[in-house]
Amino acid sequence: MPCNESKRCFVLQKEIYLDNSATTRPSAQAIQAAVEMMESRWGNPSSTHAKGDEAAAALHEARCHVASALSAATEEIVFTSGGTEANNIAVFGAAAKNAKVGRRIVTTAIEHSSVLDSVAELERRGFEVIRLQPDRSGHIPSAAIREAITSDTILVAMMLVNNELGSILPMEEAVRAARNHAPRAIVHCDCVQAFGKLPVNVTRLGADTVTVSAHKIHAVKGAGALWKRKGLHLPPLTYGGHQENSFRPGTEAAPLIAAFGAAAIAAGDRAKMAARYEKVKALWEEARRRLVDIDGIVINSPDDGLPYILNFSTCCVKAETMLNHLSERGIFVSGGSACAKGEPSHVIKALGLPRDAADSAIRVSFCADNTAEEVRLLAETVAEGIRTLAHFQKPKPKKRENAEKI
Amino acid sequence: MPCNESKRCFVLQKEIYLDNSATTRPSAQAIQAAVEMMESRWGNPSSTHAKGDEAAAALHEARCHVASALSAATEEIVFTSGGTEANNIAVFGAAAKNAKVGRRIVTTAIEHSSVLDSVAELERRGFEVIRLQPDRSGHIPSAAIREAITSDTILVAMMLVNNELGSILPMEEAVRAARNHAPRAIVHCDCVQAFGKLPVNVTRLGADTVTVSAHKIHAVKGAGALWKRKGLHLPPLTYGGHQENSFRPGTEAAPLIAAFGAAAIAAGDRAKMAARYEKVKALWEEARRRLVDIDGIVINSPDDGLPYILNFSTCCVKAETMLNHLSERGIFVSGGSACAKGEPSHVIKALGLPRDAADSAIRVSFCADNTAEEVRLLAETVAEGIRTLAHFQKPKPKKRENAEKI
Repeated sequence: MPCNESKRCFVLQKEIYLDNSATTRPSAQAIQAAVEMMESRWGNPSSTHAKGDEAAAALHEARCHVASALSAATEEIVFTSGGTEANNIAVFGAAAKNAKVGRRIVTTAIEHSSVLDSVAELERRGFEVIRLQPDRSGHIPSAAIREAITSDTILVAMMLVNNELGSILPMEEAVRAARNHAPRAIVHCDCVQAFGKLPVNVTRLGADTVTVSAHKIHAVKGAGALWKRKGLHLPPLTYGGHQENSFRPGTEAAPLIAAFGAAAIAAGDRAKMAARYEKVKALWEEARRRLVDIDGIVINSPDDGLPYILNFSTCCVKAETMLNHLSERGIFVSGGSACAKGEPSHVIKALGLPRDAADSAIRVSFCADNTAEEVRLLAETVAEGIRTLAHFQKPKPKKRENAEKI
Repeated sequence: MPCNESKRCFVLQKEIYLDNSATTRPSAQAIQAAVEMMESRWGNPSSTHAKGDEAAAALHEARCHVASALSAATEEIVFTSGGTEANNIAVFGAAAKNAKVGRRIVTTAIEHSSVLDSVAELERRGFEVIRLQPDRSGHIPSAAIREAITSDTILVAMMLVNNELGSILPMEEAVRAARNHAPRAIVHCDCVQAFGKLPVNVTRLGADTVTVSAHKIHAVKGAGALWKRKGLHLPPLTYGGHQENSFRPGTEAAPLIAAFGAAAIAAGDRAKMAARYEKVKALWEEARRRLVDIDGIVINSPDDGLPYILNFSTCCVKAETMLNHLSERGIFVSGGSACAKGEPSHVIKALGLPRDAADSAIRVSFCADNTAEEVRLLAETVAEGIRTLAHFQKPKPKKRENAEKI
């Protein structure tokens, strides 16, 4: 049946949210924790009276929960405004600390923009940046890591799970190479996409600093944490009050931190994590099976990646067009990451895909609340999109406005 | 009646919160806005689908409210994690922008620690910092400003209202001197304590950047904003996604920003502001009248300051002891600012008060929800504290632990 107003003739009964790597729905526990802080325990945690003490106690409790989820010591947790700030603090802190030791920074071409743009700024300030390239499935070759980490390396920054592909990066190899060949290097690991999905034990991981984010684990946007190894001194990025041991000053976002703590209890629970993993793995396999059956679709995510993320290309409908098609039908997925709104993804570019595949890459990202029925509807709606939209695809002339921006 | 367990024999029926310069109770409107974002509009504002769009729309709405409260353009508002981050962005941004033009920074000795500690860091990096000293009542003399702002000044950072005394600083004079004598200087004004209490019109103020904070206007801890004059380009402090025009990247704290927007409607309303001012002025006068009647008490706040803050010294009971005494009775005030927990206040020090007065300085800070009855109970409880505690005051020997920290 032809349909000129697809929005009206194809209405799903409910929203299908498959963009959990961009953000997650806050859990009831997280919301409740935030509300309690806003309604009752709203004192300033730094105030030296009972109203401040009750807020400080809530902060401490949340810190314990986040630390426990990371198998870390409570005093090693530094609360930030999110993953981006935590990555910036780690990268700029390491560079400032080691600036007199060396200038070489090793990272990958598929890091989050908060790492890549920070090291690019350091490059402008005279540091040397090595960006390891992934293979076609988003793996960073171990040999490349060993080769890149030389004795003058002062910072190794690598994510544990890539946010667009789900590929798992060889942190163990990076830590070993750093400890063996670059004893002064600080090793930073962005665990934003791994936290709550893979067991993150900071001691076993072996890094010096680790970033996690609240809103990716069903807490609330605006909070994150940097785990910093006990005894590691880094210069801060911002200056002011004595909060977070003067390392990250400013009145703490107490309601968000309490929500983060509440969500970290569930995120860090190893049994629940394993159960979520199995459930999501089944969804990932179902989605993969259904999508590869559709003519033209290629899977960009590796087979051995984290099954919370499935990246594929339709090769015939631009990502933006497909996203709109899906969104109009209440299905929410992503093209590239949410942080690269409106621009081609640097991760997909780094894979070296053909133009058609790169321009049509879609990221589906699951949580344990998703269902097989949602996956079925996704696949059907993608197939419908390909049928109805593929022949409309023409390369659009670049607008002057965009051209000027470049 | 003698009482060894004062906590139990002197219990107030309710909490008396007189520490509104440290933080305020979130308004019902602010909490409702945050809850709506967490429960329904929890998408990532950067996501290019309907779930992202509804979050982005809420952000835009909040931005309009905050801009309107400052008589600013919407696109001039940069959301941050709070006043501390906004002050850091402004100070470090101005220094980085103008580093090749000159090295002289003019500020005051009574700024918030997020400005003072930032300029101290710049001083370590080779900038010259002039810290203007206040007179005995917390005023910064206009002549000193005119003299300090020379042609090589690249940054003038001055708060509009001091957070410990309520003194109003001569911003008009500072702006005029900067424009006349230091054409390249960026003028930054920390309006955290003024916002919602005095009309803040950024155009009339004449500064280049202005800081405001959400949790001081009955919104929620963890959000703030930097107003940045249209056309002024400053290097960012953090790098990553495209949020806030790439000037302050990272997923926005959408629930907090929505709460900030909701609170800014009330904060910026000029008629409501005037009504609040009159009410608070009466409370301030009542408090002052009652406190000066108590033997030994001296008022540190100026007579012509903002009546939201009343600073006084008992001259016989250490601030910490008095705070505990009041807190045990459900009365919450502050000694120094909440950001200088456990340390003597740099503002009180700068006044050059005698030792007894400096060590016993207490800050009472009002909001329009406070009552004359609360002021009466405050004064009575302070008087009781002086009667029962004054003769216990002895200088304590410094603990080894503290000594080591220094």
